[in-house]
Amino acid sequence: MSKIVVVYHSGYGHTQRIAQTVAESAGAQLIAIDAEGNLKDEEWATLAAADAIVFGSPTYMGTVSWQFKKFADASSKAWFGQAWKDKLAAGFTNSASMNGDKLSTLHYLFTLSQQHSMVWVGTGLMPSNSKAAKRDDVNYVASFSGLMTTTPSDASPDEMIAGDFATAKAFGERIKAVAARWVRSA
Amino acid sequence: MSKIVVVYHSGYGHTQRIAQTVAESAGAQLIAIDAEGNLKDEEWATLAAADAIVFGSPTYMGTVSWQFKKFADASSKAWFGQAWKDKLAAGFTNSASMNGDKLSTLHYLFTLSQQHSMVWVGTGLMPSNSKAAKRDDVNYVASFSGLMTTTPSDASPDEMIAGDFATAKAFGERIKAVAARWVRSA
Amino acid sequence: MSKIVVVYHSGYGHTQRIAQTVAESAGAQLIAIDAEGNLKDEEWATLAAADAIVFGSPTYMGTVSWQFKKFADASSKAWFGQAWKDKLAAGFTNSASMNGDKLSTLHYLFTLSQQHSMVWVGTGLMPSNSKAAKRDDVNYVASFSGLMTTTPSDASPDEMIAGDFATAKAFGERIKAVAARWVRSA
Amino acid sequence: MSKIVVVYHSGYGHTQRIAQTVAESAGAQLIAIDAEGNLKDEEWATLAAADAIVFGSPTYMGTVSWQFKKFADASSKAWFGQAWKDKLAAGFTNSASMNGDKLSTLHYLFTLSQQHSMVWVGTGLMPSNSKAAKRDDVNYVASFSGLMTTTPSDASPDEMIAGDFATAKAFGERIKAVAARWVRSA
Repeated sequence: MSKIVVVYHSGYGHTQRIAQTVAESAGAQLIAIDAEGNLKDEEWATLAAADAIVFGSPTYMGTVSWQFKKFADASSKAWFGQAWKDKLAAGFTNSASMNGDKLSTLHYLFTLSQQHSMVWVGTGLMPSNSKAAKRDDVNYVASFSGLMTTTPSDASPDEMIAGDFATAKAFGERIKAVAARWVRSA
Repeated sequence: MSKIVVVYHSGYGHTQRIAQTVAESAGAQLIAIDAEGNLKDEEWATLAAADAIVFGSPTYMGTVSWQFKKFADASSKAWFGQAWKDKLAAGFTNSASMNGDKLSTLHYLFTLSQQHSMVWVGTGLMPSNSKAAKRDDVNYVASFSGLMTTTPSDASPDEMIAGDFATAKAFGERIKAVAARWVRSA
Repeated sequence: MSKIVVVYHSGYGHTQRIAQTVAESAGAQLIAIDAEGNLKDEEWATLAAADAIVFGSPTYMGTVSWQFKKFADASSKAWFGQAWKDKLAAGFTNSASMNGDKLSTLHYLFTLSQQHSMVWVGTGLMPSNSKAAKRDDVNYVASFSGLMTTTPSDASPDEMIAGDFATAKAFGERIKAVAARWVRSA
Repeated sequence: MSKIVVVYHSGYGHTQRIAQTVAESAGAQLIAIDAEGNLKDEEWATLAAADAIVFGSPTYMGTVSWQFKKFADASSKAWFGQAWKDKLAAGFTNSASMNGDKLSTLHYLFTLSQQHSMVWVGTGLMPSNSKAAKRDDVNYVASFSGLMTTTPSDASPDEMIAGDFATAKAFGERIKAVAARWVRSA
């Protein structure tokens, strides 16, 4: 069975709820980057042992939060020895706006994964974009490279969009299926 | 007075309506790239004489249409001599989805402008992203680097979103104001 | 055994030599996009039957050539039915400069692959960037997301950089290894 | 006269030398982001009073350092009130490799500037990329969107590339000229 780890930073609890949904759906372990951008040694060890790593961060000012970036910078230790080579990678991000440069965040998570020589899997989801489309449809936000969710700027973690959870669940299932296939063949 | 030119490709008429709205609002001349990706000689001359060029294209399969790209490739003639250096640049794109990789298109239009040593101006618009936000709000789609509009996949050019036209109008005004300032100082 | 296909456009023969090197190294079939951006029906069928597709294009004016983009736009047929879902994807680009926005091209090829729900593999190569580094070292150009090669603007296809061919060979081997693993598990 | 400010983070002193060169050439004030990613209040005030802000950061693991990102996140205060609207923006980055995803960093700095409704200016420099090109040529690294410099991984700040300083000087002159024009017209 494949070991999937979701490693994420959440500033106000919204990204955390998405992380939990993805992790539950994918059968993954959850690791939270703390408010100072740090992980514990055993959390680094968990990442080292993973078959797949899913990166998650809010989009702040156009890319990942500084805490996530501090984690990414610290992953240079793993990078030097290419310790994460051939792990599967995926990513997700939450912010207040429909776009709000969330693709910039996903492009960064992809770029990070490629420096680590990981293999990237996206959402595998078609968008819902006809005249009849509703915000609660799966992938209404219409992202391919990774999961995007969109929480209104004044919504608490309890007021997030139902469709975003449905999309996060589908994304978790996608990662689980691809990771299972990838691990089976190792 | 500043000479602003909007040069765009439209596959099915949606991007054309946005181009017209931006041009009217900015006081700009319109140039349509034809279905084979070509411009007439006098249209190239119009671009050469412009103070500001606004690039527009649908997002197809993750970036500008091939016809727009053919125009961009042909602009290498202007590039060799840096004939567009110091012109102001801006960009817009339309597609069916909320995201659908439209930021990839805007990033490309920006990249093109930088090869030409142009100076880039974005929307200058804050997003509408509270719980009370409506799709017809200005910049509901929440784009900064350039204008994004989002037409449902089964909507005709007559069925486009009113808020997108309002956003396009605001974007045109932004370009007009920045171009006026930029030209005044030349 | 995995069926790998390299589909590329080459304007002046340089990208073609890289395509040939990658294909030979990966054990892949080669498909050339013609000067009008078209493929033959049987070439589309070959892509449909592939386990892995490697996309290649020169970088012109900041992203893929218009001929490559025409191919990408035509791939929307496969996209509608998600016919390429779960194929492995990779990409390469050649241009005259050390950077010259080649990462923009690779980001586009990645974006295209994600719309097709493909799984992306990069170079898996560390860069050569010490004081002792030489242009003929493998991955001197230092690209992770895909293969970058750098042919001087006045070099003929016979005058390309030896190190670029060595890097292309290593990239082909990487694709072959990952594709074999991915296919084995299907 | 235009007030130009260079705000940068440097991990090991290389980016600092580039920052100093750009600042001297542009006639700009220098602000260093500290090792914890913080600025002093009076430094924020200096940024608020600037006509042009030049952002600088090393490229670490595929984008700006976490310290630079912490600064960017803290700039959300200025963002809410759009206090930096209409300032000129530009950016630079240093890393060990020829590419090494430096364009990802510049794309981020651009994205940040667009959230702030700033107007972006690039290098305005053609690349040196013929067979006769030398690493000490101006813009040998061939970047348009902003300044890229490339210091070997084992080079001390005293062993940086002469051509990079020449390119940084030309970049500073470019910013100075464009800022002067932009301010004159305010």
